[in-house]
Formats: sequence, structure tokens, C-alpha cells
Amino acid sequence: MDVKLNPDERIDQLYSSNIQIIQNKKTFSFSIDAVLLADFAKPDRRRRGITVDLCAGNGAVGLFFSKKTKGLIHEIEIQPYLADLAQRSIKLNHLEQQIDVLNIDLINSLEKIKPDTVSTVLCNPPYFKNLSSSIKNDNQYYAIARHEIKTDLEKVIYITSKLLKMTGHAYFVFRTDRFLEMMQLLIKYQLAPKTVQFIYPKPGKNADMFLIDAIKNGKQTGFKILSSITLADDEGNYVGYVKKILYGEQ
Amino acid sequence: MDVKLNPDERIDQLYSSNIQIIQNKKTFSFSIDAVLLADFAKPDRRRRGITVDLCAGNGAVGLFFSKKTKGLIHEIEIQPYLADLAQRSIKLNHLEQQIDVLNIDLINSLEKIKPDTVSTVLCNPPYFKNLSSSIKNDNQYYAIARHEIKTDLEKVIYITSKLLKMTGHAYFVFRTDRFLEMMQLLIKYQLAPKTVQFIYPKPGKNADMFLIDAIKNGKQTGFKILSSITLADDEGNYVGYVKKILYGEQ
Repeated sequence: MDVKLNPDERIDQLYSSNIQIIQNKKTFSFSIDAVLLADFAKPDRRRRGITVDLCAGNGAVGLFFSKKTKGLIHEIEIQPYLADLAQRSIKLNHLEQQIDVLNIDLINSLEKIKPDTVSTVLCNPPYFKNLSSSIKNDNQYYAIARHEIKTDLEKVIYITSKLLKMTGHAYFVFRTDRFLEMMQLLIKYQLAPKTVQFIYPKPGKNADMFLIDAIKNGKQTGFKILSSITLADDEGNYVGYVKKILYGEQ
Repeated sequence: MDVKLNPDERIDQLYSSNIQIIQNKKTFSFSIDAVLLADFAKPDRRRRGITVDLCAGNGAVGLFFSKKTKGLIHEIEIQPYLADLAQRSIKLNHLEQQIDVLNIDLINSLEKIKPDTVSTVLCNPPYFKNLSSSIKNDNQYYAIARHEIKTDLEKVIYITSKLLKMTGHAYFVFRTDRFLEMMQLLIKYQLAPKTVQFIYPKPGKNADMFLIDAIKNGKQTGFKILSSITLADDEGNYVGYVKKILYGEQ
């Protein structure tokens, strides 16, 4: 292997994918949300359109998604160390011809990628508002990835809408307590919510996350709530569809 | 029994409630949606506030809900025969002191009930837009109850908002394909969506219905998606929570 691993880094792989991802338990590892988002998202019909992964972190979503499309994938990540992790995973999987990493603030992405040209935007945005009262992670990598320190939901959705061509799809994973805020912003920026799938942590628990597919300039009809995803049983063991993705068993 | 039953009418009762409801299989029977709505809705804290059941049909929602509150309940139903069914069920259950039926168009309800005085509005609105292309039920009772012939969602939500006092609650059951439309109308009329529960017909199927709790002049924070309700197993037999309401077993 010609890819260098730094101390605290290791290579992880899902059962359901032959993609290898460089992780760093001390600074940043991808979450189950990234796995579900990559699985939920569909490529454009001809599988040749451009994909952009915003707030890419260590690149997991775009790397998993590369198996579904032949088109180019741009990973946009503001944090240099995470962008470097993503770059090394791309090399590790020999995907340099398909995926590149732009180590920029997503607000500047229109300087690098032409507006109205992208078929698919993927994004696992920072979940928490950057209120002074919110408890942030001491780890700056997680803090920036999870809190709206460097960007916020409205910027993410504005840029998504600018990048996408007409009828292009945006796929997000986000927290249910900000569901209405996301719906209102999507509609404001001409992204019609089409399909939502709620993620319930255990049986009998409230959904804490959701996946959404929105279409640029789409009509506000045909809205669907897909079958529920329950992550784990009462004891916290992954079950069903999620267990299959992670471990290959159901 | 001093309540007259007409031909085709019969008395139905749920396992979970001692309320008896006069039904007419040929013209109108309450659905599982009415049962779920009455179970989902909560009375005001002191259980003395006024409740209004809009689009009451044969009165099932308000009749079931009467077990949860000591306050007055007004059932509003435009169709004379359905209003008469509701009136006779009220008598059958000796609830004339608590429940009355207003056989009026809901748009006129502010002439009978003072605005800003109601604690709880319950409604199972007509589900389908009254497009000329939509296939309507030949039975006029079902057609009016299910299609927006005599009213529409915006009127229902406008009247709900006018009736409710500040921090009063609106509880609806509605179809997921019109979920976004309902959210936008609720926000337009100062009803903050607070809690949603999706109803999945079977495991692995899309949710087709949802329950919602919205608060007049409430803040748009703390939005929750409650644990999923699955109605039936793969063979179509009611399961879990729903089976318990209907038959007392789980």
C-alpha cells in the first residue's frame, strides 16, 4: 500500500462495500448517518452526471456513493486534516480519476464548480445551531462537523440549489427537531421535498433522524414517507436493514 | 333503549372504550383513523376546556374523546343524516350534557362558538382534493366526507386557528401525500406543528397517514416525530397498539 497512515489512524471497511476508509478515532470517524445517506441516495438515470458531497468530512459518503455512478464526484470539506484523510482514502481505493477533494468553504464552491451543472448533491450537514449555550465537542474536528460554526443550514441549501441543474436531486440526512426548518428552506430555494425516510433508534422511540430527497424546480406533489428504518433492538443491537449494511446479516 | 335505529343501522363498540356508536354500513361508518385521532389527542391540562370536533361525521372522534375530558364538546357536521347519527349516539351514551351537534358548514362555526375560546380542536378532514378528475365515491355521504366538496384544508385550518385560544391544541389525522401542504397552512395560520406520528399500514410499506399536534401561537421549536405506528402484519391482521385499541389484545 502506498498510502501513509498517521498515528491514531486506521482503515475501516463496511461488510456491504469494498470501499476502504481511513478513520481517526481521536479526531473524526464517519457515522451510521453517512452510511445511510450513501445508501439512500440514487445517481442520475444515466449515471454520468456530476455529484457533489458537501461537508464531506473524511469523504465517506462520496466514497460509498462512487460505487453507484460513473460520473465525477467532488468532495467539499473546509477542514484541511479531514480533506487530507478523504484524499488519502481516494488514493487507497484508486479512485483519483473519479473523485477529487476541494478543501474550501462550501460558500466558495461556485468558484470551482459551475452553477446549474450538478446532477446530485449529497450532504450530512452540521446538526446543531451554533448558539453560545450549546455544548460543543472539545475536539475541534467534531465541533466544526457537528455545529454550525463554519456554515449553517441555509448556506448549505442555498449552495445546493445553485449547484444543481433543473430536476437534479439533493439528498440530506438531518435531525428531526430541525425537520420543519429544513422543509421551509428547501421550498424557499426551489428544492421540492419529494421523499422522506425517518430513522427510529429503537422500537417505541421517537425518530431522531431523517433522510430526504428533494428535486430542484420539482413540483410539490407526490410527497412520500418511505417505510421506517429502525436502527437497533431494545438492547441496542443493530437490526434488519442496518445490520445487513454493516455486517451482511439480517 | 330509547334511541331509534333505522334500517341498515347498527351499534358498534370498541374493546378499549365503553362508548357505543350508531353506524350505517351503507352510508357511513367511522374508520381506524378516527379511533387513532381520538387516542392521540390530549385534553387541556385542567380537562375543562371546550373541544370542537370539525367534520365530525357520525361523531365518533368526539364521542371517544369525551372519556378524556369533563369539558363541553361541540361536534360540527354539515350533512344532516350524519349529524342525526351523531345526535342519536350522544343520546345512546347519555352524553347530552357534555356533547352537542351543530349541523352547519364549519365556515359558519364562528357564529355559534366564540373565537379564541376553544382549548382543543379535533379534525379528520376530507382527504382528497375535489378535482373533476378524482374518482369520487358514488355514496354522497362518503363523497362529502372524503373529498373537498363542501370544504377544503385551508378553510379547516383557518377556522381551527380562529376557534382556538392562545396555546390551544389542534389535532388532525391526514394523508402523507398532503403532509407539506398541511405544514405550510398550519404555519400560515399561526399553528405551530409540534408532534407528528406516522402511520405505516404494514412493515416495509410507506406511511400513508399521519397524526399531528399543533399549538396556536406556539414556537417553532421542539418538533418531534413520535414512534411509528404499524397497523397490520404482512397478512393484514391488526397488530400491537392498534390491535389492543380495537380488540384488547396485543
